[in-house]
Amino acid sequence: MDRYLLISQDCHAGAPWFIYRKYLDPQYREEYERWVTGVIGDISNLDQTQMDKQVPAQYETMSADRKREYLEGMERSMGHLGNWDPTVRARELDREGIAGEVIFPDGSQKNHPPFSYSFFKGKKASPELRAAGARAHNRWLAELCQSNPKRHAGIALVAMEDVDEAVREIRWARKNGLFGGVLLPALPFATDGAEAFWNHPRYEPVWDVCEELDMPLNTHATNAGVNFGGSPLAGIIENHFTTYRPFWFLLWGGVFERHPKLKFCPTESGGMQVIWFNNYFDEYLIKHRRPEDVKKAITMKPSEYWHRQCFFGASAHASRMEIDARDQIGVKNILWGSDYPHPEGTWPASQERIRELFSGIPEADVRLMIGGNAARVYGFDTEALNKLAAKIGPKISDFSAAPAAAA
Amino acid sequence: MDRYLLISQDCHAGAPWFIYRKYLDPQYREEYERWVTGVIGDISNLDQTQMDKQVPAQYETMSADRKREYLEGMERSMGHLGNWDPTVRARELDREGIAGEVIFPDGSQKNHPPFSYSFFKGKKASPELRAAGARAHNRWLAELCQSNPKRHAGIALVAMEDVDEAVREIRWARKNGLFGGVLLPALPFATDGAEAFWNHPRYEPVWDVCEELDMPLNTHATNAGVNFGGSPLAGIIENHFTTYRPFWFLLWGGVFERHPKLKFCPTESGGMQVIWFNNYFDEYLIKHRRPEDVKKAITMKPSEYWHRQCFFGASAHASRMEIDARDQIGVKNILWGSDYPHPEGTWPASQERIRELFSGIPEADVRLMIGGNAARVYGFDTEALNKLAAKIGPKISDFSAAPAAAA
Repeated sequence: MDRYLLISQDCHAGAPWFIYRKYLDPQYREEYERWVTGVIGDISNLDQTQMDKQVPAQYETMSADRKREYLEGMERSMGHLGNWDPTVRARELDREGIAGEVIFPDGSQKNHPPFSYSFFKGKKASPELRAAGARAHNRWLAELCQSNPKRHAGIALVAMEDVDEAVREIRWARKNGLFGGVLLPALPFATDGAEAFWNHPRYEPVWDVCEELDMPLNTHATNAGVNFGGSPLAGIIENHFTTYRPFWFLLWGGVFERHPKLKFCPTESGGMQVIWFNNYFDEYLIKHRRPEDVKKAITMKPSEYWHRQCFFGASAHASRMEIDARDQIGVKNILWGSDYPHPEGTWPASQERIRELFSGIPEADVRLMIGGNAARVYGFDTEALNKLAAKIGPKISDFSAAPAAAA
Repeated sequence: MDRYLLISQDCHAGAPWFIYRKYLDPQYREEYERWVTGVIGDISNLDQTQMDKQVPAQYETMSADRKREYLEGMERSMGHLGNWDPTVRARELDREGIAGEVIFPDGSQKNHPPFSYSFFKGKKASPELRAAGARAHNRWLAELCQSNPKRHAGIALVAMEDVDEAVREIRWARKNGLFGGVLLPALPFATDGAEAFWNHPRYEPVWDVCEELDMPLNTHATNAGVNFGGSPLAGIIENHFTTYRPFWFLLWGGVFERHPKLKFCPTESGGMQVIWFNNYFDEYLIKHRRPEDVKKAITMKPSEYWHRQCFFGASAHASRMEIDARDQIGVKNILWGSDYPHPEGTWPASQERIRELFSGIPEADVRLMIGGNAARVYGFDTEALNKLAAKIGPKISDFSAAPAAAA
């Protein structure tokens, strides 16, 4: 094939509130309307079309060139309709040359899952409401993905308070085609000791079922309720820490050791920190801690678990430096993503951006990072996707063999 | 000189409670006794000598070899007496070949400053009590340092709630010989937005006076009240993040820009993360954020502020990998430390440990990292210290010119 199989490991989708409402168990609908009114304001006369055309807050931080490019995409796709309309979505993916995608929630700021359970385990809604909202999102997303089930790998939202319920929901999700795995919400930096972190034995049945059904664990950049003193430029590096936190809890909790096929994908949070913590864990802790303490949790070097089971979602916040550091991060551990339809991502110019990002990199490496790894990690049907890629995928000949001057 | 000038940028000292008591303003003494009883238990018949001989909790995680080595030092120096007895302290420094030292608080677990204001801005005591405890510690420490004022650079504790009071205390500290600068406490990962972070304009008078008086800002590894799910192995990497947090708040708050001579020294938290955040800030944020947003805070590349004003305190949690990465971290930005008298440090075997750590490194680089940088950053009187170093300092000829086989 003279084209690459391009898979975006980081896309987003969400429904307008009046659609989500239909997917909620009936007993929660009234409460949901109150919740929506609290977030959006008066919804009695709301024109959803106008709402979808609103530009997200991140837009304000973009350069003039990027604004123009993004607004052209918005105009062409009638705002954020692709967030929930499968026809518009497929057209935009085609245009971008993307054969397959992994779908996170939070398509736009107005399309949060019901009761706001998403990247961050906020404390605003009760566990019961969070679980109800998650189920509604999963039902809706499963239906969206059915429009082309081999192309769209939806990620299930799973409330973790009730572990039995979580296991049931994960089985339901897999059975209903959500093979993008499970969203692992960021946990608060709690000081009261009340929160059970991912190293807690109570989650063992969750890891069991995720390994059994080949459902990766995904995290995504989020502010996790941390106070950044009003500085988004300071906050962004803290988000990038939060996204990776489960790595060391799962590592030292022995979860990767006991579940060698379980996968963890921290997404849209840069990748250079992987070099930091792998080096640190490998060298310092192993050298200076009692071997018996370490061996309780792990039998290999910490970085070996990373390379075997963890994958850096290289979307919006990735850059050429991570690609150049691919031998350290792992050329098999990098998953490109467009972040569609978020303005900090590459849509609607993914084709140009991947040529910039990967120019001068050996073809075999590019093939892994822009699609091959995601296909393997999430279990996409590559035979089916290659047929599509043969028509829409980026042409290999369009990638420069020499590094771009600016790199 | 055929010997190196060795300065430990990370040492600790603290007084027993009954000594701290005398340095407290009288109106707080009764409250302090209640506080000590809460922390230590019944103090009416307490044998302080026994207390000082208690081994710290970290001891339990050490290898058998390290335990033996550490206990020999404890035996020889009568427990932790060097924590507060200047004669024992000087003898141990001599034995270690250390000509100068920077002194953090928390000598041992029983020698916390009054009301527990230390590395972490905990919320247990009121701001008034914290400030009173800080003043008592500073008075006591200033006296300890007077035993050899050019050798001991004490770090002042400064409560930051009342900025005018903080400025007064910093002036008092400098005038009374505490030229180690100021301890910047770790701030909680607050979610309520109530906490003023270091980018807040209210602290401007503090940065002014620290720059004027050449008082470095220091942070030190601490757990910052974060819940690690009972896993110290997971927690340690989170501590290492906390210690560095002020860097981005000071950076994006424009503090380094406005105060080009202000210095920041994150200590005992490893150094590989410097490569991560410098690369990330330099490349991603500058490339993808609006130039006008960035220029509001800074005019140079973020890493240039690091190299100009920030210094990695390479004590207990540092290892050969940081020394090998010195061109990226900055050979002028690494400050060796023994962590005396903490068991995770190198005391009482600093001489052997520095030979291992620096063997095969060019002499000029070693000279900077084990003393020259600290002398410059903290303003030690090198003429005075060199006289001492000529007698006790590690012999250059003892360092192998070729890298150690194990490195």
